[in-house]
Amino acid sequence: MIYLDNSGTTNPHPEVLKSFQEVSTRFFANPSSIHQLGGETEKLLIKSRQQAAKLLSVHEDEIIFTSGGTEGNNTAIKGIALQHQGRGKHIITTEIEHPSVYEACKSLESLGFEVTYLPVNQNGVVSVKDVTEAIRKDTILISIMHVNNEIGSIQPIQEIGQLAKKYPKLFFHVDHVQGLGKVPLTLENSGIDLCSMSGHKIHGLKGTGILYCRRGVKLFPLFHGGEQERMIRSGTENLAGVVSFVKALRLIKEREVNDGDKLRQLHQYLAAELEKIDFVQLNSPANSAPHIVNFSIPGLKPEVMIHTLGKQGTYISTKSACSSKSLDESRIVKACGYSSERAKSALRVSLTYDNTMDEIKIFLKQLKEALSQLKEVME
Amino acid sequence: MIYLDNSGTTNPHPEVLKSFQEVSTRFFANPSSIHQLGGETEKLLIKSRQQAAKLLSVHEDEIIFTSGGTEGNNTAIKGIALQHQGRGKHIITTEIEHPSVYEACKSLESLGFEVTYLPVNQNGVVSVKDVTEAIRKDTILISIMHVNNEIGSIQPIQEIGQLAKKYPKLFFHVDHVQGLGKVPLTLENSGIDLCSMSGHKIHGLKGTGILYCRRGVKLFPLFHGGEQERMIRSGTENLAGVVSFVKALRLIKEREVNDGDKLRQLHQYLAAELEKIDFVQLNSPANSAPHIVNFSIPGLKPEVMIHTLGKQGTYISTKSACSSKSLDESRIVKACGYSSERAKSALRVSLTYDNTMDEIKIFLKQLKEALSQLKEVME
Ligand SMILES: Cc1ncc(COP(=O)(O)O)c(C=O)c1O
Ligand SMILES: Cc1ncc(COP(=O)(O)O)c(C=O)c1O
Repeated sequence: MIYLDNSGTTNPHPEVLKSFQEVSTRFFANPSSIHQLGGETEKLLIKSRQQAAKLLSVHEDEIIFTSGGTEGNNTAIKGIALQHQGRGKHIITTEIEHPSVYEACKSLESLGFEVTYLPVNQNGVVSVKDVTEAIRKDTILISIMHVNNEIGSIQPIQEIGQLAKKYPKLFFHVDHVQGLGKVPLTLENSGIDLCSMSGHKIHGLKGTGILYCRRGVKLFPLFHGGEQERMIRSGTENLAGVVSFVKALRLIKEREVNDGDKLRQLHQYLAAELEKIDFVQLNSPANSAPHIVNFSIPGLKPEVMIHTLGKQGTYISTKSACSSKSLDESRIVKACGYSSERAKSALRVSLTYDNTMDEIKIFLKQLKEALSQLKEVME
Repeated sequence: MIYLDNSGTTNPHPEVLKSFQEVSTRFFANPSSIHQLGGETEKLLIKSRQQAAKLLSVHEDEIIFTSGGTEGNNTAIKGIALQHQGRGKHIITTEIEHPSVYEACKSLESLGFEVTYLPVNQNGVVSVKDVTEAIRKDTILISIMHVNNEIGSIQPIQEIGQLAKKYPKLFFHVDHVQGLGKVPLTLENSGIDLCSMSGHKIHGLKGTGILYCRRGVKLFPLFHGGEQERMIRSGTENLAGVVSFVKALRLIKEREVNDGDKLRQLHQYLAAELEKIDFVQLNSPANSAPHIVNFSIPGLKPEVMIHTLGKQGTYISTKSACSSKSLDESRIVKACGYSSERAKSALRVSLTYDNTMDEIKIFLKQLKEALSQLKEVME
């Protein structure tokens, strides 16, 4: 099997699963229970939070454990909106956000908020100037992703963070789900108030994630209840999930350091080879994140290619997994200024540190073969 | 170890954990991915949903997989409130709800909703007459729990359901977290529109749950995004969690049938023996759920007894785990009309089908010994 859909989801690391298993068995008690078993699980929770904080270079109380990226994004965006609507009801985001940001913003429009969706250039990058100009007196939130999940473009988060710092009453949220473990992002003292991460994109387990929430930032919680997680995310803690997430985070951070060059080489080779192929048009920018290559084969329905490759045990995807079911054009590729035809025929190869040059070569061979066979069905 | 805090959380069943492990490894792909691996995981998701629906005697599309009871309760309550506020802003609930319902309702007050908190009688039961009289033209939601988590009182859900049916514009939500697998509850054609369940209370895993959402009921989603789970709960599906939940549900339903009598016998014996002990005052009503016995030892701080027993490997709790940290009086025991002293000194023994008569006898012996030792420290 050649699995090249790692932005859709990753294979959980065996050690991550082992942690989950062990904690589920040995530390099953409720950390809120005041008996000794509860005390032990609470200690493990505290330790895990410390480890996560250290790995992300933030404070312990800034770590909110969640059930994933969608929860993190919605908690941040709706949480700021509902809590601070008295101050203003304007939100700034981009046209290329993941549905969990994009639709969350849209839903707020139905509650009386006003949202500015900033365009991107052909490289899929928003301009800091546009962000600056969009800021109004009643702007309470800027939500901009770090790495785009479809084409891998990297947004100027550092600059936007510096800009946001000048507006202390305005919150800055970053969807870091695709960047984590692939493209470095500084949280501390960066102007970022909120930052979402997801376990299953870094060889962790589904149903796990972190929302970084800077000290002092107040949110209207989506989950009220037992006041867990700084009251921002009530609910009995999924301690096994927490420990497994922290393990996945440690492992991916190690690989980011040790295998980053290898990944960038694979990426470069893949993009260069794809560009040489007739019919293939690269949608990812030259300086994209090292794990995503998006390309179109105009005239060919992406699902045809995906199934042809899938029969040979090679798995690639189209758009983000989350919107694959509606096989229309890609909102992201369209936002980069490309034609509908190109946006309709986009394919995504997404890598992880386990992928090898051999796998890439086999994939390219299979792709070329499929193309020559499918030429006929292409309009 | 004698674990008697099963309403706090339960020990996951080995088979449940095994399912989680297997699915995480073999079906890791994203069900939304259109390649063959995604297709396989999607099939398993569909099958799991069918199984859950069958076990609960509801339709497949009425099953929304969640991360737990707190999510289910908040999704139901805030989802109805935000979606249907145009029709009215009045909500009816009780004084004895779990914090995930109680605080969710309170949070809505800050958004302009009006909430009626109905009282309960000394048995901890709300009156159907009170519910009837509380209904107004602008009432959009009734949220009443099935089994109370502190004292085990069972609410007249069937009657309230019949009442709710007469008001087709009003939604009825039931927090079934403590009832599931212990006290039967009919969902189909019951007047119940929404019903929350949690995995970790039935020997399933933390981070798993179901929100039953009747066909046609529209909610404002807390999580917008990739439109999973009928658009009510977006986010990459935690398929391993889903399969493990369904396994736990099947197992607990079997035990409910096979071991229900045994559990009721244990419960009866325990309550009767407790009542014989000097200083002990029973707070659970005679006809409570078969797994919860709540009692007070006025003058004794509950944490002292909990730690004394804990040193001997016997674990009981105080109030609900979720609010154990704030060691003040129990809102629930107070709502039953008992004194502050009694509400401050409440202890909870909560059983599961694995508990034995021997364990109960040992616990009672330990409790009596501790009491005679602690008499001096009691005021
Ligand atoms: C950029 C981005 N944000 C958010 C998400 C949602 O994360 P999750 O699947 O953990 O809900 C995804 C993945 O689906 C993503 O790629
Ligand atoms: C009655 C009741 N409702 C809701 C919950 C919350 O469920 P969860 O712990 O899965 O968030 C609990 C348990 O904590 C409960 O006892």
